[in-house]
Amino acid sequence: MDLDDLLTPALVLDRRILARNIDAMTERVRALGVALRPHLKTAKSADVARLAVAGNAGGITVSTLREAAYFLEHGITDIAYAVGMVPGKLDAAAALGDNGAELKILTDSPDVARAIAAHGAPHEVLIEVDCGDARGGVAADGPELLDIARVLNDAPSVRLAGVLTHAGQSYDCRDADAMAAVAEQERAAAVTAAGRLRAGGLPSPVVSVGSTPTARFARDLTGVTETRPGVYMFCDLYQAGIGVCGRGDIAVSVLATVIGHRPGDNTLHVDAGALALSKDRSTEKLPEDCGYGLVCEAQTARPIAGLRVGAVHQEHGAVTGDAPLPFDALPIGAKVRVLPNHACMTAAAYDAYHVIDGGTEVIARWPRCTGW
Amino acid sequence: MDLDDLLTPALVLDRRILARNIDAMTERVRALGVALRPHLKTAKSADVARLAVAGNAGGITVSTLREAAYFLEHGITDIAYAVGMVPGKLDAAAALGDNGAELKILTDSPDVARAIAAHGAPHEVLIEVDCGDARGGVAADGPELLDIARVLNDAPSVRLAGVLTHAGQSYDCRDADAMAAVAEQERAAAVTAAGRLRAGGLPSPVVSVGSTPTARFARDLTGVTETRPGVYMFCDLYQAGIGVCGRGDIAVSVLATVIGHRPGDNTLHVDAGALALSKDRSTEKLPEDCGYGLVCEAQTARPIAGLRVGAVHQEHGAVTGDAPLPFDALPIGAKVRVLPNHACMTAAAYDAYHVIDGGTEVIARWPRCTGW
Repeated sequence: MDLDDLLTPALVLDRRILARNIDAMTERVRALGVALRPHLKTAKSADVARLAVAGNAGGITVSTLREAAYFLEHGITDIAYAVGMVPGKLDAAAALGDNGAELKILTDSPDVARAIAAHGAPHEVLIEVDCGDARGGVAADGPELLDIARVLNDAPSVRLAGVLTHAGQSYDCRDADAMAAVAEQERAAAVTAAGRLRAGGLPSPVVSVGSTPTARFARDLTGVTETRPGVYMFCDLYQAGIGVCGRGDIAVSVLATVIGHRPGDNTLHVDAGALALSKDRSTEKLPEDCGYGLVCEAQTARPIAGLRVGAVHQEHGAVTGDAPLPFDALPIGAKVRVLPNHACMTAAAYDAYHVIDGGTEVIARWPRCTGW
Repeated sequence: MDLDDLLTPALVLDRRILARNIDAMTERVRALGVALRPHLKTAKSADVARLAVAGNAGGITVSTLREAAYFLEHGITDIAYAVGMVPGKLDAAAALGDNGAELKILTDSPDVARAIAAHGAPHEVLIEVDCGDARGGVAADGPELLDIARVLNDAPSVRLAGVLTHAGQSYDCRDADAMAAVAEQERAAAVTAAGRLRAGGLPSPVVSVGSTPTARFARDLTGVTETRPGVYMFCDLYQAGIGVCGRGDIAVSVLATVIGHRPGDNTLHVDAGALALSKDRSTEKLPEDCGYGLVCEAQTARPIAGLRVGAVHQEHGAVTGDAPLPFDALPIGAKVRVLPNHACMTAAAYDAYHVIDGGTEVIARWPRCTGW
């Protein structure tokens, strides 16, 4: 089967680019001397996970318990669930453990730590530390860290596994030096927190950091044991826009069909709209605003000069450009590929990847896990 | 099971509000003297469809061929696919016909009309007319309308079913008078186009209009045969913001759990983020910007004064407000419900509705159709 045979919109994954991105990160993290625990929240695919963990320690990171269950079904047992635990999810987490998962759960709350301790199931717990992202996490140098650690360490059923932080602020950087500086914030927070635990006689075997920009540009990860980047596998226009990758490193795209021409408005419509692309507008704040995605040749995924999806309705994408659109080259029925602003958001709408290997032949269909 | 027993995020549908919205639209459209062909692109649920078609002609509208296949599997045969057809989808459309669908396909292109004619399968076709939305459709008074109609009518395999228009610009209105004026644009375009077909000796049994705002506020639909509103079933903050419904008419919400407190930032986090709510920001341009959704009591779905999701990450929603947040009333683990800006976008992330009937008891799980 060829790309041209697919019903559109369809999610396309170029395995050649994927493998290159995965190999580059594996080498990069190995050079930093830490373990790679890839975050599967972007890919949500067992086939991608197998490539991402190859040559690494085997553990992964997930953003939902459904992902954890899905990857466990596919044979991956060492799973960090990197969103704050709540008491209402402890039974579900314990059930994964009963089914063979070595699940690590996360908390930054003394109340939740007490609930985990009281739950009685053999939970393995990481303490979330804030390194400047101001989302989740306790201060690396504050009193709560040790309070939580003691509650967990004192519970016979619980294993205190260590500390975890995420420098989400790395997405606000625009160059390598800035990302390296944030990577050092991330490292320093995690290592400080782990050091305080150990100084207090508490264990911290895991010292976990990670985002794609910081993993890519960190200069030194002394004291860290693992990093958890995710979007590096696919890349996207936002990552390219902040300098983490090139546009040629974007492995995922949406195959779409031209469904209408409006030459009077210098607009054409494709059948990839708000659901197929997502309403992510993260490139709006970057020097080049890519609208809802850049329009590329279907065969090569090379951008067609200046064409972008400028507006979306549920199933319609309105393609605009700075110059007159090439209506003759893109008749109704012609296919294009749209590079996404944000791979995590766009991929989430699909139940599978149509996999190519650099060309246009569809060599596989890789299912995805969606929802919660 | 009670709402409090659900793992979050979860999509909640209040059947009592749904039924009230559906009954009101059915009565409204009956009073206008036309048929109601509900658009199922929002609900994508056979259970909702059964309620929406009850007491009506039985036909529905869909936005994807997957929806068409799904509803056909659930016994609905009269289906209008209201997105422009392309040659590459004709085989799939014909296969639905072979399986018993009375599928109506749509075009505004002479080239596509010729492809439909040449395809040979017994396609039933509506011609898309533009009534001012400037998305799809030929001009009601232009030459292409008759060109397309003749190509279709001359093809032995094809049945020219009539004309269809959609006043998407009704979403830009802010009051009933403006929506009534757009409804008249919508009616006039469709009736003009149908009249021109008939004057040319061509059939137009169907004269189809519709959007929720125009169906709600149309004053006269003389000459129209059917209307196709969709979001009226669920309503959302955008529809409430433009005056189509009240906030108490919003039938769908996202159940979420508080997963973190940041009193220093007057922020708390819930486990409904960009995927669970969508990145739709349509209320941004309305007098009251609801962020990524309004935060409500889990039990009653009543808004908690001024609380909204102000920022999202993939699985984190950051709740903010104009006054100090009620952290004590919303401890970590507490549940809330988030009303969506745009029901179509939010619901699309879920594989099922958890159905309540005005209270908190979950009385059913209604699956949804997702993807393409």
